[in-house]
Amino acid sequence: MQAGCVGLGIMGRPMALNLLKAGVPVTVYARRPEAAAPLQAAGAGVASSPAALAACVDVLFINVSDTPDVEQVLFGDQGISQGARPGLVVVDMGTSSPSQTQAFAARLAQQGVQLLDAPVSGGEVGAINGTLTIMVGGEAEAFARALPLFQHMGKTITHVGGSGAGQVAKACNQIVIGGTVLAVAEAMTFAKRQGVDAAKVREALLGGFAQSKVLEVHGQRMLDDNFKPGFKGRLHQKDMNIVMAEALALNLGLPLSAQVLQYLNALVGSGEGELDSSAIYHLVDRFSKPAS
Amino acid sequence: MQAGCVGLGIMGRPMALNLLKAGVPVTVYARRPEAAAPLQAAGAGVASSPAALAACVDVLFINVSDTPDVEQVLFGDQGISQGARPGLVVVDMGTSSPSQTQAFAARLAQQGVQLLDAPVSGGEVGAINGTLTIMVGGEAEAFARALPLFQHMGKTITHVGGSGAGQVAKACNQIVIGGTVLAVAEAMTFAKRQGVDAAKVREALLGGFAQSKVLEVHGQRMLDDNFKPGFKGRLHQKDMNIVMAEALALNLGLPLSAQVLQYLNALVGSGEGELDSSAIYHLVDRFSKPAS
Repeated sequence: MQAGCVGLGIMGRPMALNLLKAGVPVTVYARRPEAAAPLQAAGAGVASSPAALAACVDVLFINVSDTPDVEQVLFGDQGISQGARPGLVVVDMGTSSPSQTQAFAARLAQQGVQLLDAPVSGGEVGAINGTLTIMVGGEAEAFARALPLFQHMGKTITHVGGSGAGQVAKACNQIVIGGTVLAVAEAMTFAKRQGVDAAKVREALLGGFAQSKVLEVHGQRMLDDNFKPGFKGRLHQKDMNIVMAEALALNLGLPLSAQVLQYLNALVGSGEGELDSSAIYHLVDRFSKPAS
Repeated sequence: MQAGCVGLGIMGRPMALNLLKAGVPVTVYARRPEAAAPLQAAGAGVASSPAALAACVDVLFINVSDTPDVEQVLFGDQGISQGARPGLVVVDMGTSSPSQTQAFAARLAQQGVQLLDAPVSGGEVGAINGTLTIMVGGEAEAFARALPLFQHMGKTITHVGGSGAGQVAKACNQIVIGGTVLAVAEAMTFAKRQGVDAAKVREALLGGFAQSKVLEVHGQRMLDDNFKPGFKGRLHQKDMNIVMAEALALNLGLPLSAQVLQYLNALVGSGEGELDSSAIYHLVDRFSKPAS
């Protein structure tokens, strides 16, 4: 099975390297040739365009940052659709809107190409260690073909449902993490303003029903004032914007998600969008600035 | 070491039974004699008043439902303070405001009695199984005396700080759980309205950074529409009301906690206050009632 990779940034590069380490033949394409160099050094072939790449692989992974970039890679000049043969499985591992994903899948299906949406959670560390959570939408047969390759990239791999279902799960993931971060930020702020050791509070709560990965990891970030990403606030903002666009399309009211997006807007607007998204703790803290 | 127990309801009864099972001599007091009967059958002594109980024990646990009840048991007619000898340690295991706890502790200190605040998390199941999370505030020496008894009741026992610090930790616990429940409720609703299998979404998210006890337990409740308590909505409402009263006293703005209390108000106002507090899922769901 020949694998292809388009997009060799923070997430795409370690994922491609993990495929190579597992002995999978990999061919890559990158807009900037220097991005392909470390992969070439590790044994990957290099294609001259997404179209050329699509012509020579069985499963093609896309890791680009935004939905317009995905559209360009799929349907632009020298894009995947220009080189793809029937039977190709394309896997978009970025975070996009479920509805746009479904539209892309329908277009590709016309030429016998299957699109899986497979957004991930776990960040750069998860990509490097091959421990990503991968949420997959699309046809079961395409999922079955890509699964052996996913297993070199991730730990928890779930076929959630049809096209777009992976994106819906990722949206849910971002809703849950955003809301939990905000709750933990209010709790840590409350403890500190009461003059209580917030580290002890975190410790006590981790042993009980309030336990979460967010309390464990981001709670510690808040204690240390360490917001080195991790997952950048401006990317969480982009994802919550997708959630709210979908909520609008569904006429579904999600007050907490809306509130989380406002915090992320304020974070980016405060020049802190490159920090980890849990830096919304700063906003909770300075919302009630202690009188000096 | 002689232990005393006042309040033998859903939480107090199994806690007293666990002390008896561990071989601790226990004397109890209950307003209603029938509440004391099963403890007496299990080997407990029965005192005629909180004052009489206070005169014959070393550590005295209080499990009554509300702060006014605690005040009555401590300082009312035939209350603990009327019988207490210097050196007695009183432990309030209910959820009260940190500031009222500190006031009670100061009053008891005048007669050489130490008050610990030791609210718990884990519900009836945790009380029965002796796996409660116990968050303790008060003097270190009093904590050290009560600790061997706490160990028969709970699993995670944390001395958070001075008087009131246990109540602050409990408040933080309720903030985190409330906010996380609301986030999970929005995510589950979003998945369902998108036509995606919410059970698969829960499963995918549990393997990643969105993991929490709330997603695990209350997420499943939402899938099953099973809101048998657990922890009743009207009690979570009471606790969040304490949080907001403290926030007012501190002039601390906690927008998410305020929102959670509004959901709990609406839950109780909808006649669903006896359900588990995660039934606020119903409010998220019906906020955008699907057009029929």
